[in-house]
Amino acid sequence: MRPGAIYLGNDRCEFIVWGPLLKEVTLNIVGTAPRQIPMERSAGGYWRVTADNISPGTQYLYQLNGEKTRPDPASYYQPGSVHEPSQAIDRHAFVWQDRTWRCPPLADWIIYELHVGTFTEEGTFAGIIPRLQALKELGINAIELMPVAQFPGSRNWGYDGVYPYAVQNSYGGPSGLKQLVNACHEAEMAVILDVVYNHFGPEGNYTRDFAPYFTEKYHTPWGSAINFDDAYSAGVRNFFVENALYWLQDYHVDALRLDAVHTIYDFGAKHFVAELAEAVESLSQQEDRPYYLIAESDLNDVRVIRPQALGGYGIDAQWSDDFHHALHTVLTGEQKGYYQDFGKCEQLAKAWRDRFVYAWDYSPHRQRYHGSYAGDRPPEQFVVCSQNHDQVGNRMLGERLSQLVSFAALKLAAATVLLSPYIPLLFMGEEYGEESPFLYFISHGDPDLIEAVRRGRKAEFEAFHVAGEPPDAASTETFQRCILKWDLRDQGKHQVLLELYRQLIGLRRHMQKGSGDRKKLEVLAIEKEKILIFGRGSQERQFACIMNCNDKEVKYTSYLEGNKRLDSSAAEWLGDGSTLPESLTPPQELTLPPQSFAIYEQGNVDWEEKV
Amino acid sequence: MRPGAIYLGNDRCEFIVWGPLLKEVTLNIVGTAPRQIPMERSAGGYWRVTADNISPGTQYLYQLNGEKTRPDPASYYQPGSVHEPSQAIDRHAFVWQDRTWRCPPLADWIIYELHVGTFTEEGTFAGIIPRLQALKELGINAIELMPVAQFPGSRNWGYDGVYPYAVQNSYGGPSGLKQLVNACHEAEMAVILDVVYNHFGPEGNYTRDFAPYFTEKYHTPWGSAINFDDAYSAGVRNFFVENALYWLQDYHVDALRLDAVHTIYDFGAKHFVAELAEAVESLSQQEDRPYYLIAESDLNDVRVIRPQALGGYGIDAQWSDDFHHALHTVLTGEQKGYYQDFGKCEQLAKAWRDRFVYAWDYSPHRQRYHGSYAGDRPPEQFVVCSQNHDQVGNRMLGERLSQLVSFAALKLAAATVLLSPYIPLLFMGEEYGEESPFLYFISHGDPDLIEAVRRGRKAEFEAFHVAGEPPDAASTETFQRCILKWDLRDQGKHQVLLELYRQLIGLRRHMQKGSGDRKKLEVLAIEKEKILIFGRGSQERQFACIMNCNDKEVKYTSYLEGNKRLDSSAAEWLGDGSTLPESLTPPQELTLPPQSFAIYEQGNVDWEEKV
Repeated sequence: MRPGAIYLGNDRCEFIVWGPLLKEVTLNIVGTAPRQIPMERSAGGYWRVTADNISPGTQYLYQLNGEKTRPDPASYYQPGSVHEPSQAIDRHAFVWQDRTWRCPPLADWIIYELHVGTFTEEGTFAGIIPRLQALKELGINAIELMPVAQFPGSRNWGYDGVYPYAVQNSYGGPSGLKQLVNACHEAEMAVILDVVYNHFGPEGNYTRDFAPYFTEKYHTPWGSAINFDDAYSAGVRNFFVENALYWLQDYHVDALRLDAVHTIYDFGAKHFVAELAEAVESLSQQEDRPYYLIAESDLNDVRVIRPQALGGYGIDAQWSDDFHHALHTVLTGEQKGYYQDFGKCEQLAKAWRDRFVYAWDYSPHRQRYHGSYAGDRPPEQFVVCSQNHDQVGNRMLGERLSQLVSFAALKLAAATVLLSPYIPLLFMGEEYGEESPFLYFISHGDPDLIEAVRRGRKAEFEAFHVAGEPPDAASTETFQRCILKWDLRDQGKHQVLLELYRQLIGLRRHMQKGSGDRKKLEVLAIEKEKILIFGRGSQERQFACIMNCNDKEVKYTSYLEGNKRLDSSAAEWLGDGSTLPESLTPPQELTLPPQSFAIYEQGNVDWEEKV
Repeated sequence: MRPGAIYLGNDRCEFIVWGPLLKEVTLNIVGTAPRQIPMERSAGGYWRVTADNISPGTQYLYQLNGEKTRPDPASYYQPGSVHEPSQAIDRHAFVWQDRTWRCPPLADWIIYELHVGTFTEEGTFAGIIPRLQALKELGINAIELMPVAQFPGSRNWGYDGVYPYAVQNSYGGPSGLKQLVNACHEAEMAVILDVVYNHFGPEGNYTRDFAPYFTEKYHTPWGSAINFDDAYSAGVRNFFVENALYWLQDYHVDALRLDAVHTIYDFGAKHFVAELAEAVESLSQQEDRPYYLIAESDLNDVRVIRPQALGGYGIDAQWSDDFHHALHTVLTGEQKGYYQDFGKCEQLAKAWRDRFVYAWDYSPHRQRYHGSYAGDRPPEQFVVCSQNHDQVGNRMLGERLSQLVSFAALKLAAATVLLSPYIPLLFMGEEYGEESPFLYFISHGDPDLIEAVRRGRKAEFEAFHVAGEPPDAASTETFQRCILKWDLRDQGKHQVLLELYRQLIGLRRHMQKGSGDRKKLEVLAIEKEKILIFGRGSQERQFACIMNCNDKEVKYTSYLEGNKRLDSSAAEWLGDGSTLPESLTPPQELTLPPQSFAIYEQGNVDWEEKV
């Protein structure tokens, strides 16, 4: 049952809202010709009415039990704030021009995560479109939008959304998003939308007035958990399953990134995420085109991505935080907070080889065993990165990697992500070493809430022994500091880094070609010297990469063979000049420059002997 | 790491207790020669010391941080109350005589659930032994003991246990239990022990003083949940895994019944129950003998019993409440509480055919979807009954089925359970139509707690609209009313029912024989007349059973064939006299007496055409 104001054409509109415990629901049309229309209760606790003289643009509220008037929890548009009336829209008004779009398989994706508000000065969907060509030239074929569901005010990461079906008004609303998706598809780029099904934001959430959206059985970091397994959960589950289908059907979105599925607490016999996967798979089959679900999961639980026949939830892919943390700590030496669980070169090798570093291993940070073995799942089920909105933005000062490590290390990070067997994700701006921070920012309307956020941020960083005062999340200046300086792309080292990203993506494509039946991946870590060596390739072409993660020069006796394809210490990449030979013949004494990598390619050989 | 006082022989004993956040732990030997022995902290937060001059029988407490003194959470014996010192025992003192014992496969079990305190006047393990022969003659080959872990006072179902390793003192303590298990094995009967890993009882639980045994993340019906997935959960998990192994190793128990696994809240990547199953499987392999785990689960989630390779927890079998409820409602017509989800003859047929009635179907009582499909799991993974301690004892007046339905219906219930493809479980006394109730009883020491229990029981029944005053759970009389009247077995209709149970068990064994490769089960329900027909058997011998669940005579046109084996309406079973022919030749008009069944056997035919 799709909730919301479903415009039927000819000024008719069906309104459907879920309120199983309500005794009376009235549709209040607001504006110049206000009207009250009683709704009828139907099966499952849904209230429905089909009304005439409703043109697209008509605004409305629901009156509950003759008392409170509230916006629609399934509002498709909030032209004013989160506290004001909802608006009916004509879902068929937009003329799509993406009929020829064919979504590539997930294994081929290079994802670019962006935040609409800070990606451009405009901070809108429309502002993104002129930049798509540049991203395409870089090799990107999928953009991932941080959440766009209506949140309070105009500045927010998006995780405070309270109208899961409404496109943020300040970003350009429903038609703005459709134009962007259409333009992406014309540019042969897929669109991933980040959706939040584990909590509602703290301001403007009126769902409690309508139905039992929450349960007291479990606690989440955001308070009571959303009710996925208690009495009346069927309506809550329907609300979110339909939401997922809505983005895919009405907005032509190709994939959803499910925020923090580990806080979707569901002990029932069919986990909500499994039900969601079934519904999306069913739509895929019906439309004979792929739609993908990608989960963020802090569980390292292979169940999330296993097929349902093997007892899994059937999600297509998930983010691998372990990969990020292993890489980040090796490059930065950081050991605070959750980074205390990482720092060894061998862990980075394990992340390459076995997917999860923590596969039911004891985690000192969590003070418990964590994760499960996922080495039997294909690599295209994992999304990896050296930076993302969380890993940058949850630092007190929001520093990107470019502010934390040397230029050499930035190049090494790029190679680690882009040459990995997993799906790479770039965080907007990293490709040219953007220097703006990505800070936490909000623009709530409630002064108490703003103060609570300030206190919360401070306490959080103090708990991790981070000194200093966090920037004020509520100030406009904090937000503006985060806007990308796109012009940097054409300047000096930024331009060089951008070209390196482009070449690495090209090399990745080249590596992926060849017969799929004998793809190899061998990874070796020399812990003491922080050297990581991997060989991968197909029967026809094989590659070896030598990575020195150390911040000083180290010696290495190589038994590898091949011709050099890319060397990060070469002068063209602003290195100190290459010291590595053009071709390798074993055995060979090599001197590896600090934080460098080099890739060699060769023909048909047996890699197991070499690496 | 096995916690507790591990007697090493020669008056030496190693004490091991888990207290990861404690700064100091002292072993206080109490009694005539008190001593204080400092303990040493070792890896994982365990405190250890090996002490001399500790003979079996030595009593001790632990002093924590130089302050509180407390009994051992892993006490092997509490000779006094739950508040008094723990006692070291010599685990090797008992001389086992069960070396030739070979545990039969689970599929062959007929389980007899009993409560030690009320099974006999003595209320002890020793009291049970003289009755084993009678149970064996009935056909029982496994007894299931309700929990025996030390609880407060002497009257309790056992689910208020607070020392999971200590055998209830009033039942006969450790040696009493060993004698019983030994006697069972000599009588070729397996022993199942009911263990509670989802909560501690409300009185005498001092575990919080030792370590983070609880988490605030989830709420259970008993308050904070046990900490299976939060920081320090490794020690909690170890405490319970070792407990399971302890019963199997030290007490020769053959199987554990895991109480309410749905309240073992664990969102981690390896559910505690899966870890437990791994540990028990590993012991089985090591000792080259089977040990079984049987779960009570309110989830209807096939994951519990699926093998781990299919994403399951790997539990051997689970109780099927759906089977009970379907049968109970068809016979009694009751529709209150959870019985509102049942009442149709077709549901009983589904329970026979597909394991769960609720397999992601909407449950009106739960007001949500419930369960998953388990029809692909073998029938010997399900334990079924017409009565058990919960279904009888959670009624306000504790009525057994014999108090609720006619004698004819009792016979029908017996056939439904005993001829089902699942593992039958009888509740002590049902085999001869015991008339004593099985009421809820306690003997807590804390007056406030007693009052809280009284209020709680009252409120619970009021919520289900049950009129009247519940019997006082704290009174001795309530307990005494529940003691079995074993002598009834030899009297009148009781004796007849007992003989019917015996013959049905014999018939079950007869039905189970034959080639296993073509076992059939066909079940048909005629809803309107409440007729249930099933055919089952092997290639060599096949059976048809016609059950009239209606409380009046109905007509039925039979297309079945075969010779009559058993007819519940025959005079020998105190029926009104059989009206069914000795052999069936289709088509045939039959008149089925009220609440009756008849079983026909025939040779090699194709049942799919017949049933």
